[in-house]
Parts: sequence; C-alpha cells; structure tokens
Amino acid sequence: MSVMRLGYVHVRVTDLEEAKSHYGNTMGLLEVANEGNKVFYKGWDEYDHHSVVLEEGGVGLVKLGYKVSESSDLDDIEIKATRFGATVERMAKGDNLSVGDGLRITLPSDHVVEIYHEIEYLGTETGRINPDPWPRFRRGVGAPRIDHALITVEEPALVERFFADVMSFMVSERVIVSNENPEVIGSWMYCAGTPHDIAFIKGPNGKLHHFAFALESWSDVLHAGDIFAMDDVPVDVGPTRHGITRGQTIYYFDPSGNRNEVFTGGYLTFPDFPSITWTADQLAKGIFYISRELNERFTSVLT
Amino acid sequence: MSVMRLGYVHVRVTDLEEAKSHYGNTMGLLEVANEGNKVFYKGWDEYDHHSVVLEEGGVGLVKLGYKVSESSDLDDIEIKATRFGATVERMAKGDNLSVGDGLRITLPSDHVVEIYHEIEYLGTETGRINPDPWPRFRRGVGAPRIDHALITVEEPALVERFFADVMSFMVSERVIVSNENPEVIGSWMYCAGTPHDIAFIKGPNGKLHHFAFALESWSDVLHAGDIFAMDDVPVDVGPTRHGITRGQTIYYFDPSGNRNEVFTGGYLTFPDFPSITWTADQLAKGIFYISRELNERFTSVLT
Amino acid sequence: MSVMRLGYVHVRVTDLEEAKSHYGNTMGLLEVANEGNKVFYKGWDEYDHHSVVLEEGGVGLVKLGYKVSESSDLDDIEIKATRFGATVERMAKGDNLSVGDGLRITLPSDHVVEIYHEIEYLGTETGRINPDPWPRFRRGVGAPRIDHALITVEEPALVERFFADVMSFMVSERVIVSNENPEVIGSWMYCAGTPHDIAFIKGPNGKLHHFAFALESWSDVLHAGDIFAMDDVPVDVGPTRHGITRGQTIYYFDPSGNRNEVFTGGYLTFPDFPSITWTADQLAKGIFYISRELNERFTSVLT
Amino acid sequence: MSVMRLGYVHVRVTDLEEAKSHYGNTMGLLEVANEGNKVFYKGWDEYDHHSVVLEEGGVGLVKLGYKVSESSDLDDIEIKATRFGATVERMAKGDNLSVGDGLRITLPSDHVVEIYHEIEYLGTETGRINPDPWPRFRRGVGAPRIDHALITVEEPALVERFFADVMSFMVSERVIVSNENPEVIGSWMYCAGTPHDIAFIKGPNGKLHHFAFALESWSDVLHAGDIFAMDDVPVDVGPTRHGITRGQTIYYFDPSGNRNEVFTGGYLTFPDFPSITWTADQLAKGIFYISRELNERFTSVLT
Repeated sequence: MSVMRLGYVHVRVTDLEEAKSHYGNTMGLLEVANEGNKVFYKGWDEYDHHSVVLEEGGVGLVKLGYKVSESSDLDDIEIKATRFGATVERMAKGDNLSVGDGLRITLPSDHVVEIYHEIEYLGTETGRINPDPWPRFRRGVGAPRIDHALITVEEPALVERFFADVMSFMVSERVIVSNENPEVIGSWMYCAGTPHDIAFIKGPNGKLHHFAFALESWSDVLHAGDIFAMDDVPVDVGPTRHGITRGQTIYYFDPSGNRNEVFTGGYLTFPDFPSITWTADQLAKGIFYISRELNERFTSVLT
Repeated sequence: MSVMRLGYVHVRVTDLEEAKSHYGNTMGLLEVANEGNKVFYKGWDEYDHHSVVLEEGGVGLVKLGYKVSESSDLDDIEIKATRFGATVERMAKGDNLSVGDGLRITLPSDHVVEIYHEIEYLGTETGRINPDPWPRFRRGVGAPRIDHALITVEEPALVERFFADVMSFMVSERVIVSNENPEVIGSWMYCAGTPHDIAFIKGPNGKLHHFAFALESWSDVLHAGDIFAMDDVPVDVGPTRHGITRGQTIYYFDPSGNRNEVFTGGYLTFPDFPSITWTADQLAKGIFYISRELNERFTSVLT
Repeated sequence: MSVMRLGYVHVRVTDLEEAKSHYGNTMGLLEVANEGNKVFYKGWDEYDHHSVVLEEGGVGLVKLGYKVSESSDLDDIEIKATRFGATVERMAKGDNLSVGDGLRITLPSDHVVEIYHEIEYLGTETGRINPDPWPRFRRGVGAPRIDHALITVEEPALVERFFADVMSFMVSERVIVSNENPEVIGSWMYCAGTPHDIAFIKGPNGKLHHFAFALESWSDVLHAGDIFAMDDVPVDVGPTRHGITRGQTIYYFDPSGNRNEVFTGGYLTFPDFPSITWTADQLAKGIFYISRELNERFTSVLT
Repeated sequence: MSVMRLGYVHVRVTDLEEAKSHYGNTMGLLEVANEGNKVFYKGWDEYDHHSVVLEEGGVGLVKLGYKVSESSDLDDIEIKATRFGATVERMAKGDNLSVGDGLRITLPSDHVVEIYHEIEYLGTETGRINPDPWPRFRRGVGAPRIDHALITVEEPALVERFFADVMSFMVSERVIVSNENPEVIGSWMYCAGTPHDIAFIKGPNGKLHHFAFALESWSDVLHAGDIFAMDDVPVDVGPTRHGITRGQTIYYFDPSGNRNEVFTGGYLTFPDFPSITWTADQLAKGIFYISRELNERFTSVLT
C-alpha cells in the first residue's frame, strides 16, 4: 500500500482570467485543459495530466488529490478509512477530467481528499529521450511541479492519526505545546522522500493555509521573488528559510487571495526517519528560521 | 517489501591515515568508530551508526549495504535472490560493527551487497529537538550524507534485472546502444525518491567506478571544489551538470585512488516515474551535459 | 583627486564584550588591535589595518573614514570642503591607531568624516603569493570586507552636493518626491566601482541607519541569515533584494542596537553611469523589491 | 586621466548569420545596428551604443575599444603613447558607428586599441526610472555586459609597461617564471574596480585568447553552461573557478572559433590594491583552481 504523492490541488478562484494570468504567465504552468469554469494546469516536470485545477467562484480549497501506486491501494485505503470512521465514497472515472476511479474521503477536519491511481499521462516538457535538464523556454517563475499543501484543522492529533492509519503517512516534524504539554499543534507528514506531502496546523476546519510549488534552488527562489515584484504578486513572507523542513521559501497570494508558496531544499525522508519535535516557544523560529518572527497575516489569513 | 537506501559503502584504502585525513578533514565526515584496520564514518545528517567504512589494504569496493524498512524484507529478498540464482548467505549480527542480522548477496557481477534492517541509531549532528538546519561547525566539504554508488558490470541488463526482481528497484534512466540496438550499456536505478540508489555501466565485473556524497546546492559544489584544491585532492571532472539525473557534480579521488563524487540536484522519483532513455551517441552529453566530452580517465580508471 | 573607498566605520557599543562576540565570532572579523575601550577589526579580504572600530559607551556612529589614493588629495579636499563651508580640521598621525595625517570634516548633517591616505598595511588572510580564493578557516558569517554606510540627514540635497563637490562622489540612484516635486529624499553615491560608498536618506542629522558588510553571493546571504539565527542576532529585514542598487541583503542589529547589513550583488558603476531615479510612490519597492513593504522599525530605528 | 572600461570588442567571424545566432539568441545580446558586413550588439545592462562588433571575414580580433571619462584624456594618452614609442593615429568621428573622435594605437604586440570618449547613449533595457533589477524577458544566457579581453603577446613585460605608463592601468595579478626568475609570463591589469580590464599572456603577437561577458552569479554560470549544451556551443573548459581573479568561469567558442568566456565573481580593485604574484609552477592552479590542469586546447587555440 502506498500513496506516492500529492497529485493535484483543486482550488476556487474569484476571477478565472486573473487566475489564469497568475498560474500561467507568472508561475509558468502549462494550461492543459479548459472546461469553461475550470482550467487545468501542470508544471513542466510533471508527467501526469494536471496538478492544479482552478474553479471559478469563491476562494479556498475544493479538494486535494493523492495518487497511489497500485489500484489495489484504493480498496485498502477504503477499508482503513471506513474503519477510522471517515466519510468515504467511491468516485467514478471522469468525475475529474482524465482521472480514473477512486475514493473521495472527507477528513475529520472537513477537507476533501481524493485518492486515485489512474490519470492520463501527458509527459514532461523535456521528454524521455536524451532530455535536457529543463525546457529552453520557461515562463515566469517556471515552476516544475507542485509539492505539498498545508491545511488548518481543529484537532491536529486526530488528523495526524488519520494520515498515519489510513494513508500510511509518517511524521517528519511535529510542533507540541511544550515538553510538559505534548499537545500537537502542528504536524508535517510525508509518504515518500520529501519532508512533507501534507501538513496541518491548529485552526478552523476546512481551511487552506497554502499549497506549494517546488523550485530547484535558492537562486530560483530569488528569481521567483523578482518575478512576483515584476508581476505585482502580493508577497506574504520571504525569501527566507524554514526551521521546519529546513527548506527555503516565499509565501505569496494568487489574485483571489489563496496563499501559494515556492519551496526548495529540505532533507530526504525514509520510513525510518526520526521525527523532529518543535516546542511552541520556538515555533516562530521553526516557521521562519532567520527572522524568528510570525506576522499577523501569516497566521490569520486562510481561504 | 522495501529497500530504503544505500546505507553504507565499505571500501579498501592503501593507507588508513591518509584516508582518514581525506574522509575526516576534507569531506568532513564524523569518525564514529575505529577497529584498528577499519574506520567508520557518518555524515552530519545521517542518523544511523555509519555510512562509510574504510578498510586498510588495497583499493576498491568491499561491499555495499542497503537498509530495508522491515525485518521481514530480509526473508523476502532471500527468497527472490535465491530464485534469481544469486549467491545468498545470511550474515550475523556483529559481522559488521553495529549492524544486525541480514543477507550477503553476491551479484551476477561479483559485487557483494549486504541487506540489513538493524543498525545502531546515533542521531544527526543537529538533533531532533528544535534543530538548526545544519551544524554550526562543519569541517571541509561538510558532506551531509552518502547518496549512491556506480559499479561496472559485464552484463548490465542482467544486473538491472537483479535489482528489479530481487530488490524492487526501478529504472530512472537507461543508456542503450541505439534505437535499432536496444542493448543496455548503463542503467540508473532507484528504490526511493532520488534519481539513483545504484547505477551500473558496462565494464569489468566487481569494480567500483565511484560512490557519491550528496550536497545541498550548486554553491556547495563550488565550495567542495575549492576545498579539493586547498587540500590537494585530485579532481577527475567538474564542477558540471549531468544530463542523466540532471544533477550537478564533481568527480575526484581519495588518496588511494577510489573515485568519489559530490552530487546535488536531480529530480524526484516515484514508483510511476517514466524511465528516461539515452542513446549511446548522446552518452557524453548524458554524463557531462555542459562539455559533452568524456575524458579517458573517467571511462578507464576503476578500483 | 580620488577617494577610493569607505575605509573604516567607527561606532559606539554599549557593551564591548558582547560586541566583540558579534563582530568577531558571528561576523567573523579578525581582531587586529585592542586599546581597552576600543577594539579594531578587519575582514579577511581587507589589507589595511582595520575597517571597523568599536568604542565602548553608548551607541551610534562616531565617524566614517574614507581613504584617498594620494597624499595630495588631502589638500585638495581641504580646500574644497572649506570653500563649501564645512568644518574642517587636520587630524594628526596617531589620532587613529595606525592611520596617518588627514582631515576631519563635519558634514552639514553633523556626521564626522575622516579623510586619510596612510594606514598600516596588514595584508589579507589569503596573502599575495599563489593565494586561495578564501581562507580555509572562516568564522561565522566570514565577512570579507565592509562596503558602505547609510546615514540620515535633514537636507539630502545639501549633503549630496557636499559629496559631489568636495569628495567627487557621483550619484548612482536618487529618490525624489515625485516627477512634479523633485525634492531629494534619498541619495546613493559612489566614488569607485560599486553602487554606493555612502548613502543618505531624509531624517535627523547625525544618525546612523546602518553600515554594511559585502558578501560574495546570494548563497552567502542565506548562510549569514542562518548564522544570525544560530547566534540569536536580531534580524530587521531580509533576506531579500533591493530595487535600489539591485543588491541582495539582510538587515540586522549588533547587540547594542546598531543596524548592520550584509550586502551582495549590484551593478558596476563608472564615471559616466547614468543616475537612476526613484519616485517616492515606489520607494518601498526600491528598498525591498520583493515585498514592496517597509516595516516601521526599518524606517524609525536609528543610532 | 582615466580609462573607465573596455567599451567594445570588434572581432571577425567567418559566417555572419551563424555568429548572429550565437551572439543574439544564445548569448542574448541585443542587435543595435547592422551595416551589412558588420553587426553591432550590446548587453541588456549596457547603456552605450554597442559593446560587440562582428565583422564578416576571417576570425580573430580587429580591435578593442576603451572609453575614457573625459575628452582631455585623449590628448594625454596620445602624448604618453607617442613618448612610449607606440604607433598612434587620430581616428575620426564616424570611423566606428556612433563613436566620436579618438585614438587608434597599435600596441607593441600589434594589437589595435582604440580610445574614445564619445559614443551614442542608448540606455539599458531596464531604464533609469524605478527600474527592475533585470529585464523580464531575457534571451538565452542573457549576458548583461562585456567584461575583459585576454590577448597573447611576445613580451608581456613590455605590454604591461605600455598599459601602466600610457593607460594608467594597474596590475592585479602577475605570473612570473619563479621566485628566482621574475620574468613576467602573464599579467592581469585593471583600470577601474574589477580584477581585470585587459590581460595578456606570453604567446604570438596580435592574437586573441578570449573575450568575456560578465554574469551575475555562479548560478548564472550553470545556466549559461546549460544553454551552451542546448544550443550546441563548443565548450572549452568549465564551469570552474579561477585562482587568478578568484572568478568563476566557462570558456567556449563562437561558431567561428573565437573563444568567449562567461565570468562572474572576483574581488574589487582599488588604486592601492596589492598585486598578487603567481609562480609558473602554480599556473595551472591559477588558471583552473579546482582541476589544477590546463588542457592543450586552452593553451594553443588562438584567433
């Protein structure tokens, strides 16, 4: 049984044309399909059909899609999710453009997660035969792929248990109140080799804090920041380094106010990775390692 | 069943004192144990007991150790290796300092691979509680961890089949003679999230081409190159970029003539990663993307 | 006639031991002399006797020292400064440790600037014979040299005229109120090849906004930020990019509250460099290009 | 009297269309004028009319142009050059497109150097009002400006004396045979703030070893190397670091075989910069710091 990765993020945007300019021109994603009120994108280094879905009307997260390595994983997760007490339904091939049969699970935090194995293969922009390391003509930030999402949940320990028991995710880092009070107030979990495929912090159920695009280097983070200034993208925080995950980052907003992140760096994870613990008194350092300060906007703006 | 990673590389060195200076002072590994004719090292970001073993006397590879995520994986691999026709024996706890029971397999190419699940936990140099992203005092190159090894084998297709069938590795990239003649002359295989955990190219059985340390960035590759000049380390090729794996690299030699690599970058792999194919006419570009030239030394010096 | 560079910055610190830890251990400057209540430092790539002087008692700027290329420049500047109406006195060899005869000028903004030609030569840490590109053992941030200072002045246009007429500095960039109101509210001036050797913005006379150390790369800026977190150095803003000068930066405070900067990048300047103009409505973007926001602290904390 | 910088490099190319593709599409220079058999280019960060002139027919250097800061510098240099014994003639406005009156000097090494003060001002691609740090759409390597040239001369000490006495250049680094035999076999000289505006090594008179474009960072050097692979540009050496100048580099060839360099980094120079000396036994390390090896091609191919 194995979840491989966050496959897609489906979000609402207030104005589709503005959003297309942001995700297409500024972020450099490739538009792969357009259903009128929904537009589908992928990064240049992604081979599946899409990784970002924009749906016109409102803001915030519609759902996250996680791809499993085998069809039989769907049955396995269905059983475990049901046993856990989550709401699970089967989704049909075609419910999502190009995506096969799968599961639609409502988390204890009211977020919707879809699990699927089949999705149309499109291939990367560099191809599979004697490929260049990157496409000669990239647009804007030139994001190669999505990386993870961070959601807010009322009961982090409960949602952590869901991802551990049902999805076989593991904890890379966890924030607890203190050594005396080990209540979990944030958790970063992985299914594969990166520091996180999902993360959640204590907050209102059903909300999105941000979803992230992976970049290749700290230099690319600066380049992204420059593009954000050129294209008038509101920046929340960064460039800076995270203590948690050790990665480098800029947080910013799409034109509808959904927070995005560009992220690079971070360690490798393995099934035996020894989880890291942060205490709440060091939370600001854990989030923004260099400044050791959290701004009000970062902790309060959710969609 | 799952192999997690290359856990250790055990090599012979002609002079242990010279080798200690190289792996300790220049590469910045931490000496964790010394058995007289053997010295054990780990990188600052590795939590297991050791990742490099130096044994005095001669040059070349003694064996590679791969760590599995569960004890039961050992039985599974034993069955598959036997079925494959490889020579398999059980190794006992203590055959390798700090390492538990496991398997010792002789590949069809005469290389020895050990499989183990238990090894003493030492922890990283930054710890697990509110850790800094790197240790305040690093030595020399400051290599955080080992990454992969590349060996030469007479029959690449056969060894590729071994790693696929017995170890459940997957092919990230493969070099074939041409579209008309799909004979495999090199193969890069992964078990987890990086581009390769083992690689082999056509050549004499039983030989080591190089083993590699992971670095964090292209800037760290330059820093390593500077350290090599300061410490009179013979450099083979680099800094440059690979076409294959897309990573950035310097190849160099330890004082005994074993080739090492510092490596960074490269894409993520997943179980559904679509293998990349290189044709031999583009091999030089695949190996050294920028110069598109292979030097004689790179292709002929093995230990 | 030619001023070559900012040669030294002399500041007050409340606690000399704390300051020594900051400038020595964290910034990695080399202590070259200690007069009890004054300590002298230089960066590893500076060949003159010192570039930073710390004097115990209070905070803020004591004086800036600019080095001229010939002794005769002193006479020339004395004449021009007197003609300008500035307060000029001769300073004697030994008034400053290791520094020869020179001028002490009080700017119209009450800041004290010293002009000198002679200072003891100590040499860089890498030497002049077959040198390495950097010293094998650097401490903390490892700052190679100081770069510039930014002071606040009530009348920027007046001080700009002083530096142009008396010191032969040129304007690289200038902030004006608007196209309709060309009042100067900030000016960046250079004497040699970098974007600025002095800068001033409208504010109270006699105050220091910051002085800066040059670093070699954007990667070194991240490294510096990490060191600041490890050593509990208060960070004001950054890492980020400046619009003005195009450089990359972190602002932070020494233990006494004097603001420092690490700075890298920026264009070359020449005598025919065409000055750049910023309008006040774009000031935030000019200062912090990526966030396009000025925090209260950055604009109000002076020493 | 002051030479400000290398203003233009005028070279011959065998095929103008191929050369235009190289300097325009690959290097990303802007074509500013076309006279049929000559094409004029500038980098995006250069404000003068042009910095590279390509002339069809043959290979190699036609001439180098150095820009002085005042008209009166022309008279001064003419007197000094004549006194030195060099061949000097006046060149007329219009002899070079957009360039004013000036001097044409034949060096003792038969290279032609032009000195001028006037050249048409075009401005950079980012402009002078609230500029972005770089143009949103760069082509290929996106070279911002030219940096220096290295020529071969039979008598380095003589040519060094010419540049010192006539042009007021200073020596940043010099290669001598040995401490016992201080014969100069290479010299790097500067007029402004970078490590070199001209360099020469012992070899045949009248030949060009390479001319260089400045880049902004080591990351941009890798990016350039990738572009060279994508565009089939022959690479000579690199990426690597120089010992001499401390810069980072790739050497490569234009389609006619003229060697180019992309160069970044290096220290600041000032009139009091203490010259660095390399001994010939360390020359390979001085040129290619990391490999400490010179290839045959690098030392023998000249145009």
